[in-house]
Amino acid sequence: MALSDDRLAAQMAFLVEADRLKSVLRATTLADGSRRENSGEHSWHLALYALVLADQAGPGVSIDRVVRMLILHDLVEIDVGDVPIHSADGHAHGSAAVLAAERAAAERIFGLLPPEQAAAFRALWEEFEAAETPDAVFAKSLDRVQPVMQNLASGGGTWTTYNVTAEQLESRVGVKIARGAPALWDWVRERTRSYFG
Amino acid sequence: MALSDDRLAAQMAFLVEADRLKSVLRATTLADGSRRENSGEHSWHLALYALVLADQAGPGVSIDRVVRMLILHDLVEIDVGDVPIHSADGHAHGSAAVLAAERAAAERIFGLLPPEQAAAFRALWEEFEAAETPDAVFAKSLDRVQPVMQNLASGGGTWTTYNVTAEQLESRVGVKIARGAPALWDWVRERTRSYFG
Repeated sequence: MALSDDRLAAQMAFLVEADRLKSVLRATTLADGSRRENSGEHSWHLALYALVLADQAGPGVSIDRVVRMLILHDLVEIDVGDVPIHSADGHAHGSAAVLAAERAAAERIFGLLPPEQAAAFRALWEEFEAAETPDAVFAKSLDRVQPVMQNLASGGGTWTTYNVTAEQLESRVGVKIARGAPALWDWVRERTRSYFG
Repeated sequence: MALSDDRLAAQMAFLVEADRLKSVLRATTLADGSRRENSGEHSWHLALYALVLADQAGPGVSIDRVVRMLILHDLVEIDVGDVPIHSADGHAHGSAAVLAAERAAAERIFGLLPPEQAAAFRALWEEFEAAETPDAVFAKSLDRVQPVMQNLASGGGTWTTYNVTAEQLESRVGVKIARGAPALWDWVRERTRSYFG
């Protein structure tokens, strides 16, 4: 009883800590442009993207594993914050300094959980970050396409904020969407022409 | 090509419409009490609860189906809004008028999707609402326990707003948590004693 109480106490402490992801603001706004999106609601939206766009996934992709990855993928931002793709002329996202900070955050945040659960969640997050397995590649495609859809809906969003060109959108975003979901990027790129002219 | 384009257009229209769930405010606040929680980030938090508290589920529960249910479960609130459990002395939530409005909302919102997907999502939502299958019963337990944890963290929350008693918490909330996750409710109820004295 004492042992299972400790286990539940650790799990609940993690779930209360996770609440802070709702206060991490992204550069992207809601579709109606009314305010910036937070990383908690963004993670929910991506999980919904995975359920809806399942038939865009390549062979061997498990949508349930993709959903699990997407639910966990941004938790490190509780410590590190969101690093916008187009900020610092596209150089901040994925920099060595950011990656090191995210690793430390993963250690601390997943480390709140019971050990075997911490290891399982951490492994799923590492798999997402590495973007090598079919599940992770598809999850990354969704993480890149959702902000494009938000920007299209709001009339520019971060493309306007950061003076993004069609070429930068292709190299920073389009390539990664196309890697996991080529037909999806074809469809979305076509819709971006009205903004990029 | 034209047909798959139509399909993707319908799916994307649904995903943009779903964004509005991030603007539906709940009575419950964030754990730090800084603002009211919205139903989009709430849905993400519940999906995380399901992953973390999987070992509280009874036999035969599929956590992946529970996660899918929780991702979809509040979408009807885009049209209907959130109806707090403790509002109108506990009588508003689940009233015939609210249920009818939620059904109409499900028809409209899931109806944006391609037909076979609309039917599958609608069926999962109906299963959640009926709270009869093991998956739905466990999903409902999580939907009831998360606001309790938010209220504990913020020092009262909706219990203070609506003058809730320990007996009302037990009958409106505890019974439903215990139905799908009895040990979880035992643990959480014990923590609520410091508030209800």
